[in-house]
Amino acid sequence: MHNIKLKPTQVLVIGFATIILTGGLLLNLPIASQNGESVGFINALFTATSAVCVTGLSVVDTGTYWTVFGKTVILFLIQIGGLGFMTLATMFFIILGKKISLKERLIIQEAFNQSTLAGLVRFSKYVLIVTFAVEGLGALFLSLRFVPQYGLIIGIAYSIFHSVSAFCNAGFDLIGNGKNLMPYVSDPIVSLTVSFLIIIGGIGFSVITDVFTNRKLKKLSLHTKMALLITALLLTIGTVGFMVLEWRNPNTLGNLTLGGKFLSGFFQSVTVRTAGFNTVDFAQMRTASKLLAIILMYIGGSPASTAGGIKTTTLGVILFTIISVIKGKSETELFRKRISRDIVNRAITIAIIGIFLIISVTMVLSITDSQFDFMEILFEVVSAFGTVGLTLGITPLLSALGKTLLIFMMFSGRVGILTIAFALARQQHKYKGNIKYPEGKILVG
Amino acid sequence: MHNIKLKPTQVLVIGFATIILTGGLLLNLPIASQNGESVGFINALFTATSAVCVTGLSVVDTGTYWTVFGKTVILFLIQIGGLGFMTLATMFFIILGKKISLKERLIIQEAFNQSTLAGLVRFSKYVLIVTFAVEGLGALFLSLRFVPQYGLIIGIAYSIFHSVSAFCNAGFDLIGNGKNLMPYVSDPIVSLTVSFLIIIGGIGFSVITDVFTNRKLKKLSLHTKMALLITALLLTIGTVGFMVLEWRNPNTLGNLTLGGKFLSGFFQSVTVRTAGFNTVDFAQMRTASKLLAIILMYIGGSPASTAGGIKTTTLGVILFTIISVIKGKSETELFRKRISRDIVNRAITIAIIGIFLIISVTMVLSITDSQFDFMEILFEVVSAFGTVGLTLGITPLLSALGKTLLIFMMFSGRVGILTIAFALARQQHKYKGNIKYPEGKILVG
Ligand SMILES: [K+]
Ligand SMILES: [K+]
Repeated sequence: MHNIKLKPTQVLVIGFATIILTGGLLLNLPIASQNGESVGFINALFTATSAVCVTGLSVVDTGTYWTVFGKTVILFLIQIGGLGFMTLATMFFIILGKKISLKERLIIQEAFNQSTLAGLVRFSKYVLIVTFAVEGLGALFLSLRFVPQYGLIIGIAYSIFHSVSAFCNAGFDLIGNGKNLMPYVSDPIVSLTVSFLIIIGGIGFSVITDVFTNRKLKKLSLHTKMALLITALLLTIGTVGFMVLEWRNPNTLGNLTLGGKFLSGFFQSVTVRTAGFNTVDFAQMRTASKLLAIILMYIGGSPASTAGGIKTTTLGVILFTIISVIKGKSETELFRKRISRDIVNRAITIAIIGIFLIISVTMVLSITDSQFDFMEILFEVVSAFGTVGLTLGITPLLSALGKTLLIFMMFSGRVGILTIAFALARQQHKYKGNIKYPEGKILVG
Repeated sequence: MHNIKLKPTQVLVIGFATIILTGGLLLNLPIASQNGESVGFINALFTATSAVCVTGLSVVDTGTYWTVFGKTVILFLIQIGGLGFMTLATMFFIILGKKISLKERLIIQEAFNQSTLAGLVRFSKYVLIVTFAVEGLGALFLSLRFVPQYGLIIGIAYSIFHSVSAFCNAGFDLIGNGKNLMPYVSDPIVSLTVSFLIIIGGIGFSVITDVFTNRKLKKLSLHTKMALLITALLLTIGTVGFMVLEWRNPNTLGNLTLGGKFLSGFFQSVTVRTAGFNTVDFAQMRTASKLLAIILMYIGGSPASTAGGIKTTTLGVILFTIISVIKGKSETELFRKRISRDIVNRAITIAIIGIFLIISVTMVLSITDSQFDFMEILFEVVSAFGTVGLTLGITPLLSALGKTLLIFMMFSGRVGILTIAFALARQQHKYKGNIKYPEGKILVG
């Protein structure tokens, strides 16, 4: 790998792909399945992708289908995916005492979307410490419910598993029979603990570090302010939206108390943005709620986190650009800072390619899997892109081509559209400043 | 109006609204309906909006419901909408020999999206001459089919009506019983004449003038090149797309000859972008084709034309921005010209607000008119926004609130999102260059 000249983005894409492929080969072995027969390569690859990309979509029932070996492989893949394989690589380097080369730093930098090289090793350490601390605290809270319910050993195991799955935004559960967390729809301990684990895991390690280090609002970076603002905005819109739209739906929130409605609205608004747990059945929701879920899944969480989607800050940059245009300003301004044209253009590119991918894949799936509804397919595709893992129930029934396309969507959503685009682009992505063309005019709208 | 200080964009919005309201009041009169009873204000307003915004969506059957008076009002409204009421205003000024003030020029400039004041009167004259010349030629070709079929008088009347309706991208037809142009699915004379009228009407007067004046590709403006490029691209994608997707569908293209398949694929790809005629039933199409139609309706035609949607050049600017980002360039470049940040930002704003409006209205309609399918509602909303006029059949059955929202969508699609936004914005849209904030960094994607 040191002889072939690879771009950092290419190393990243190949690295992720290699881990997924390895996982797929292991899950394809007969010893991974309870029935002693191979699950079939496309199903094995789908499960491995879903785990590494912390999506949670499943073609078979995780709890009953796989053997202990299979479940162990899946858990490993989730852990690698959640922490990011680059953190693990960094950790190995530290443990082995090897000095990290500039090139290796560049790759890590690309993976974490960090804009300075300095302190990347320190940052990776932070990631590990924060991860284990938060997951431990989450497991502690969950054990308050799970230990009385399942006994000491299983209760603790469940607490740890769901805490990790929530923080990594993986959305895998052990409750079984597709019930997910529905039994806990009105339970504040489980609902709120899982919600906060998801939010912290999905807001990005750089934001956590920034808040933890600076503490005062004024000292926070622009990125942190933006991520927090958009996250708060989306949580509010989601909570109010699901509550209002599902208020009288007897199959979802209709029969809950006022507190239960709020708790459930909040939980669904948190989980839909990338985690993929659910305490109500999304298939029973009204069309408007499904549409709201689709939008929130598309946006996803924040960069350099365990989340998928186009990311909160991408949306934020676009929103503030629109506000600037309407106010008649040439530049995107927010919090008394200018946003460079490069960043605005990157944000548009991510958002539009995301929409393009979703529409294209939905179109193909509507042909290859024509027995399903337009809404069912669209929901599934966006869920894969946002690495959410929610489904209206069609995942196990998809065709081989349908599964392959969803594998591609999960991969794009997790690795990032621009990372893939840069990896595929012929030139290195730096500005060739030699030619400066004259300005041309175009009427738009 | 000369005493109150109004922005040009506000005059434009109020002007369009006044014409629609006047039309609505006239159509609301009992003498407009064959049954002697008022059609009801919301239906009258819907019809007036559909006519002025050259959409073609109808809550009642145009051919059988209205009296001669009603039909005359509708025809007038189409004509005003198609030419743009500003052209008419200019024409009146010329006829009356009045000198046009700077402010009036500014309003016209805004209406035609022209970037220089010079020659606006001349431009308006061009618009009228081109309109009548092309419509006359179109009627001549159509009479080759309609005169033998309907006799001399009705044949000529039909030829003129459909030529005007096609050039203005209005999509109204006299064939009756909701058949639209389906009887002519394999007829090259009608299909091709109507197609070319739609294309010329939808490509924008400034492009027509530019091509007509400069003739050579090299001398064409950047705007013209972009509009032609994207139009050609969309027509190709649409034609190939509809042909491939509907090839074996017995309810659409399945039973046609190879030539018929091509003609029909081409016609649908032309009409779906803003005209709203159809020679096959869109309700019978496959989901993937409906989705393709939705995308093409959303994009629409070119600026300063009779088309709706976000416009071809808006899409073009965004596409070239994405290409520049992937190539690692800071600025949007095409045809050896740079595109200013202002134009790129305007393009994003139009595209994103368009998507936002479509999703919001679809969401509300899925509640107020919940008996309809998600696809039926989405199709209808995008059709209104693109002032296309195609429907999967739900227009007459919509609730009053549903109709009101579609009125708003047609208005937005025709007047332009940015025009409305600027009209509503408190400040005048010019850059306040005093404060220059320091640049901030944000991670996107
Ligand atoms: K997930
Ligand atoms: K139309």
